[in-house]
Amino acid sequence: MQLDVYVTKQKGLVDEYLDSIMPPPDKHPDIIHKAMRYSLFANAKRLRPILTLASAESVGGNVKQILPIACALELIHTYSLIHDDLPVMDNDDLRRGKPTNHKVFGEAIAILAGDALLTAAFEALSVPEITDAIGSARQLKIINKLAKAAGSAGLIGGQVVDIQSQGKSLDIPELEYIHVHKTGKLILVSIISGAVAAGCSENQLAALSGYGEKLGLAYQIIDDILDVEGESAELGKNTGADSALHKATYPQVLGMKQAKIQAQLLISDAKADLKPLGDKARHLSEIADYILNRKN
Amino acid sequence: MQLDVYVTKQKGLVDEYLDSIMPPPDKHPDIIHKAMRYSLFANAKRLRPILTLASAESVGGNVKQILPIACALELIHTYSLIHDDLPVMDNDDLRRGKPTNHKVFGEAIAILAGDALLTAAFEALSVPEITDAIGSARQLKIINKLAKAAGSAGLIGGQVVDIQSQGKSLDIPELEYIHVHKTGKLILVSIISGAVAAGCSENQLAALSGYGEKLGLAYQIIDDILDVEGESAELGKNTGADSALHKATYPQVLGMKQAKIQAQLLISDAKADLKPLGDKARHLSEIADYILNRKN
Repeated sequence: MQLDVYVTKQKGLVDEYLDSIMPPPDKHPDIIHKAMRYSLFANAKRLRPILTLASAESVGGNVKQILPIACALELIHTYSLIHDDLPVMDNDDLRRGKPTNHKVFGEAIAILAGDALLTAAFEALSVPEITDAIGSARQLKIINKLAKAAGSAGLIGGQVVDIQSQGKSLDIPELEYIHVHKTGKLILVSIISGAVAAGCSENQLAALSGYGEKLGLAYQIIDDILDVEGESAELGKNTGADSALHKATYPQVLGMKQAKIQAQLLISDAKADLKPLGDKARHLSEIADYILNRKN
Repeated sequence: MQLDVYVTKQKGLVDEYLDSIMPPPDKHPDIIHKAMRYSLFANAKRLRPILTLASAESVGGNVKQILPIACALELIHTYSLIHDDLPVMDNDDLRRGKPTNHKVFGEAIAILAGDALLTAAFEALSVPEITDAIGSARQLKIINKLAKAAGSAGLIGGQVVDIQSQGKSLDIPELEYIHVHKTGKLILVSIISGAVAAGCSENQLAALSGYGEKLGLAYQIIDDILDVEGESAELGKNTGADSALHKATYPQVLGMKQAKIQAQLLISDAKADLKPLGDKARHLSEIADYILNRKN
């Protein structure tokens, strides 16, 4: 299957499941459910849930069984975008091709919509359907790993250092801390969750963790590059936002040429990590290429 | 044991366990861990975790086994206070006797500290120690019930209607919706979590749910009364905040005398619900009296 056909199919599954677990938009109090759905069903790539599904497949897992877990990853990612875009954080006006949540619903509802999506992720992860599909031991392990990756030692820690670094010049280790935590940890746990849910071996987990770590960092380096070279219309968010906030980025610290080489190396190494998984990991491999060449 | 001795003992257990699971205050990035600890270890009543422990005891549960679950309730409660106090929400300056989180750490870190505490609750709830103590079936049931109670159909829904109602005159059902959701659902689930963790029967759960629903509503009515009649120094937060925000309250809608009668009736009915549990529920009964007579 061509990657674009595969991605479209998986996006369809993710969107359908997310729609089935989100409260309807007219449920009281309707503004919060409208706000949650507004950001969740904007034009999103669904990269994290697709990685979860492709990771499960790479170790012989069943996509239908893994879908609720994949969707929880998207709920957490969407909450983090809504909070990151707030005026007191990155103050972004455009996201996923639409005005940001707080621009439409106001800051208070945007904060609460983010809170509600984060909470909904853990509600979605703890349903009996998942227990029936993969067993409670794997389910609880995934909940714990996801909470760690999203918490102050993961995603939130990265965001904290990111906003504290605005206007400062950073060295490579500081910049890498931000990228690995703010973006990398959730991408890595997306991949790990799918593999754990599918009952992977220790060796398979090690291979996929190597892939996930490199992919996560590469993804963010390419994000930095696109913030300089990309088109707002294609990206669905404003370009030049990093330099407007005086944020340190890979192109700025390494130079554009070296940043691109770094991204290529990481993607190449990530793909090499998939070797032991054989042909079942081909979608993960193709996703790595897609990330390197992405324009949005 | 006298209630105050009991409460002091349980608070000690809760504080000690919370301290053991919170990242140390100097852990990188230290500002987020300092901010999380600042609000968590302010002078708090620990009502919700104490209710969880007392509820577990009332059906023969083991306090030490239930403690991690009780503490997760306090993490969620503290996150909700930090976010509710934000300038775009209730704009409060004083909480638990200290300046609010955003006054000390700024709005961005306050939002992230709330996010991190909410996430930490689900990390704490999913550890293997809980599985070993109560089994995965009860553990997953509690995670799911807690997420529901904290989500857009519970606590967050109540906060949404509350901030949308500022400056409007509400009728009793609207006001009750806010109170039941914003405060009642988390108090109720604190009680239910303890009982489920301890392996209660359906009849015991029904009795405790009746108690919890009434206690939760009574607690908030008394909060409204204290906002008018209480002393800021004793409360640890500013009085008159509701009327300053033109918030509808029970004393305003029912009159002060009727509001007090309503609170007394609810507490009396809540205590009556405990009858089938016998002497093991005496701490829950005493906590109900304490809530009726509380000054903070």
